[in-house]
Amino acid sequence: MEANYGGGVASDLPEGFPSVIPGWFSEISPMWPGEAHSLKVENILFQGKSDYQKVIVFQSSTYGKVLVLDGVIQLTERDECSYQEMITHLPLCSIPNPKKVLVIGGGDGGVLREVSRHSSVEKIDICEIDKMVVDVSKQFFPSVAIGFDDPRVTLHIGDGVAFLKAVPEGTYDAVIVDSSDPIGPAQELFEKPFFESVARALRPGGVVCTQAESIWLHMHIIEGIVANCSQVFKGSINYAWTTVPTYPSGVIGFMLCATEGPAVDFKNPVNPIEGRVGDKGELKFYNSEIHSAAFCLPSFARKLIPAKAD
Amino acid sequence: MEANYGGGVASDLPEGFPSVIPGWFSEISPMWPGEAHSLKVENILFQGKSDYQKVIVFQSSTYGKVLVLDGVIQLTERDECSYQEMITHLPLCSIPNPKKVLVIGGGDGGVLREVSRHSSVEKIDICEIDKMVVDVSKQFFPSVAIGFDDPRVTLHIGDGVAFLKAVPEGTYDAVIVDSSDPIGPAQELFEKPFFESVARALRPGGVVCTQAESIWLHMHIIEGIVANCSQVFKGSINYAWTTVPTYPSGVIGFMLCATEGPAVDFKNPVNPIEGRVGDKGELKFYNSEIHSAAFCLPSFARKLIPAKAD
Repeated sequence: MEANYGGGVASDLPEGFPSVIPGWFSEISPMWPGEAHSLKVENILFQGKSDYQKVIVFQSSTYGKVLVLDGVIQLTERDECSYQEMITHLPLCSIPNPKKVLVIGGGDGGVLREVSRHSSVEKIDICEIDKMVVDVSKQFFPSVAIGFDDPRVTLHIGDGVAFLKAVPEGTYDAVIVDSSDPIGPAQELFEKPFFESVARALRPGGVVCTQAESIWLHMHIIEGIVANCSQVFKGSINYAWTTVPTYPSGVIGFMLCATEGPAVDFKNPVNPIEGRVGDKGELKFYNSEIHSAAFCLPSFARKLIPAKAD
Repeated sequence: MEANYGGGVASDLPEGFPSVIPGWFSEISPMWPGEAHSLKVENILFQGKSDYQKVIVFQSSTYGKVLVLDGVIQLTERDECSYQEMITHLPLCSIPNPKKVLVIGGGDGGVLREVSRHSSVEKIDICEIDKMVVDVSKQFFPSVAIGFDDPRVTLHIGDGVAFLKAVPEGTYDAVIVDSSDPIGPAQELFEKPFFESVARALRPGGVVCTQAESIWLHMHIIEGIVANCSQVFKGSINYAWTTVPTYPSGVIGFMLCATEGPAVDFKNPVNPIEGRVGDKGELKFYNSEIHSAAFCLPSFARKLIPAKAD
């Protein structure tokens, strides 16, 4: 760890709380050396240590409540919409009538909330390794954890890699991998054997969308993901990105892949969701225009990330 | 000012250097309360106070050299490409054969560098209020200040508002307003009288592109800009945005407007620049795809920012 917590810790923050500005939470990591984003803390609501990671929830002064795992911001109430809506609707709006969906990770429930907007969906499995994340979300983030209330949802607490191995071949129309960074419990979710299990679990022409880091910070990781996916998935392979202010560099990317079968054109959604106001309220971020736009990459990234159409 | 510099200042940083993490530069402002982005400092290269603002240049550990005006990051060597290329090529690629271009602000020279890629351009005026910015850029950012070397460039040191008033009606094909935030010397550049002067200085069907803050942080400012521009510009009016990791919230927007005259369709560039490798090297960020994509807004922003086609 190159982490340098320097500075003092305000007397009202507990010992060990990651703070470099007294009274502020600071996000410092070897994944983004030399920079740190800090949020002013009003109140620490929860601090715990599960079998897998340290879990913190705090009330920030301008981003609402914030969920932190192992020192890294996972979501804030103010900007969670862009991540949750994009990682969900990019895959689900790219195929007609998704029926069976698997979420790996995503224990906060936000992706479930978005999946459940799709009336074609009959079954939503979620496999989250850390029960503490689910419990904490239900307690502190009701507008996110609302996803668990949908009767189509079955929660499996356990290892996503093992879960996928036990899934009968061709079960799902879509798999969404809402993981943390590839340091810690999520590491295996970026490796080739995992992608092979995902491909097996998908029907022909099924799709996967996986959290795929930042084009500004992690091009080497992205190139690795693309290389793994190109070997495993025989359908379309595309990279998309969106803006999330509280993620490092302000952007996050998604790797979208399809298995061999009915062609999938990720850039041109066939299953529009916008305008459907259900019990989850209106979409805040996603629309069909921004779906297509998300696949347009800056030149420096386009050079290194080859897209593959069916 | 709600700024809370808290914490200690490392002994190797001069007194008054904006640092909340010892040895790091921190960007705290009432424009983005409750959050701060920090960069690790290797070396302070310059600190000065001009008639208009405080100017700092430092070598960061992971973003190259950084230019700071009044405590706010203006550019870093690592990510300046996205801002400079987008603010320039969004307007210039939207009209055929731009010949006369005016840059207001932009004293670092980066926009000039991008304008000069356009071989149709015959004359580039730049009006920057602060000579210290130009001098500092020439000394510390040669790959940015290279824009001043183009023989088509005439530098005017002075107030952009006054400069525009003296410009004969209909002089320019395009005006680019590369300003800092509307607190400090750039405030007038966000007001209606300024936009009226810009419109007067443009030929019929001429275009302006102005720095227009963040959809995540400054929607009230953006709504004000849109309202002003809608009254002044009788052609197309569109808002675009891009990613700049070291700007607050990780995004920056641009207001694009056209005067009455030949129709301008900002979303569909008619004057592609990509692939032209001149003495400035290849474009790092901009391409025609990302030009069009930049106009696709998240739903929450689309609701508040009406676009107007010709």
